[in-house]
Amino acid sequence: MEPNTILSESLSLSSDIPLYAQLVGIIKRSISSGALAIGDLLPSEAELCRALNVSRNTVRQAIGELEDEGLVVRKRGKGTFVADPNTNRRGVRYSFTTEVSSLGKTPSSTLVDFGVIVPTRAICEKMELREGTSVYCFTRVRNVDGEPLILETSYYPQFIYPNLTREMVQTHSFYSLLYHVGITPFSAEDTYEAVMLDAPRANLLSVEPGSCAFYHQRRTKTEDGRVYEYTRSYIRGDRVRLDVHMQKSGMTFSRIID
Amino acid sequence: MEPNTILSESLSLSSDIPLYAQLVGIIKRSISSGALAIGDLLPSEAELCRALNVSRNTVRQAIGELEDEGLVVRKRGKGTFVADPNTNRRGVRYSFTTEVSSLGKTPSSTLVDFGVIVPTRAICEKMELREGTSVYCFTRVRNVDGEPLILETSYYPQFIYPNLTREMVQTHSFYSLLYHVGITPFSAEDTYEAVMLDAPRANLLSVEPGSCAFYHQRRTKTEDGRVYEYTRSYIRGDRVRLDVHMQKSGMTFSRIID
Repeated sequence: MEPNTILSESLSLSSDIPLYAQLVGIIKRSISSGALAIGDLLPSEAELCRALNVSRNTVRQAIGELEDEGLVVRKRGKGTFVADPNTNRRGVRYSFTTEVSSLGKTPSSTLVDFGVIVPTRAICEKMELREGTSVYCFTRVRNVDGEPLILETSYYPQFIYPNLTREMVQTHSFYSLLYHVGITPFSAEDTYEAVMLDAPRANLLSVEPGSCAFYHQRRTKTEDGRVYEYTRSYIRGDRVRLDVHMQKSGMTFSRIID
Repeated sequence: MEPNTILSESLSLSSDIPLYAQLVGIIKRSISSGALAIGDLLPSEAELCRALNVSRNTVRQAIGELEDEGLVVRKRGKGTFVADPNTNRRGVRYSFTTEVSSLGKTPSSTLVDFGVIVPTRAICEKMELREGTSVYCFTRVRNVDGEPLILETSYYPQFIYPNLTREMVQTHSFYSLLYHVGITPFSAEDTYEAVMLDAPRANLLSVEPGSCAFYHQRRTKTEDGRVYEYTRSYIRGDRVRLDVHMQKSGMTFSRIID
């Protein structure tokens, strides 16, 4: 193993993928290829900044994301180490961008709809919001190598991010925006159902109406228990499976894109 | 909290549900109702035997199953305690019988097919068996309160349980049979897909052809890494959802029956 191979990689400024997400992808690929093994020390923030010519903020954001996904652990005064995947994998944060780029594929999103709404009572209950609270609601089609995979509608309370615009949603990972307002994911509740796609949804996902999909709902909370995100997605059943591995020592959960 | 309320329950000898599974159900209901809290000490084996008038074997089998599901932990010389569900829930062992009876519903099974076969190459690969090895193959419809929920086909190498008969499969939980030949589940790999049911499967599950279902595959291994079970199931999408809860401290996975 040679953790310093990461330092010989280079990031692309012309890519649509944000620099931090490119760095997350590089580190994930190093872990899955075995170049980085469990317990290996990652290069320091300063080394990464210098070698890859990026800001310390970019490096911190990438390491923060890997930490939230349970892939690395920070040890105070010692550095950042590759975590044992048997203890706690697929962490609280889920990022489509880094999931797909770590597979060596190209993620992209098409914004279908963006607005500020006063949500229905059912959504207020899911989000534990007082009725009448304004939320951002936006719908995106998430593509892998240009092919639609997920139709995703997200709701965020407006008060946590007062100045969000359509342009920001189109050009940034939402997690990178949350990061900048200081929100850290603490817990997530996901449910998956097996459902049939109606014609409008099937069209957006380029499959036949009546095809089967996972209907995925997610609530994400901060450490003080506030819901800051509610997302409902339709995931093409012909391209994704869910893997659960259990051992007495712990379990892992992952979504596998075909 | 009063752990000893368990001792005032009684088991039914005339029930189709095995005694150990009834006891598992009682303890699970005590945990979910809050009568037993995290860290509570369960009554001793001897107390349970005496109060419920069952054999020590029945009590051990029930406790073993709760332990494999991650619901209780045994501490040497101290007794058995209710486990913290945030660390390691839905363990390696999965039992339809105890899952359903712990919901206060009645599980039943209809045996559709039973035989000894020489499986296809694909199944041999899944089971890591040499080609030509004989396996039991049996298909069951699993019902909740009389309604079909899961269509399940299981494969077990014949050499691990040489004298299995159709009658034994009809009247016993397979896990209780494995228990008696000394096999302990150590790890399990599950995958879930969202698929459409063809007409024969839909008929067995009493739903319309073309309905959506989870296609669930499971391989279970012993501590030395041998596959002793491969199961493929179709689970009605209109009645079951999968829940994944994640926190920095760990994750839980559960199947929720509607």
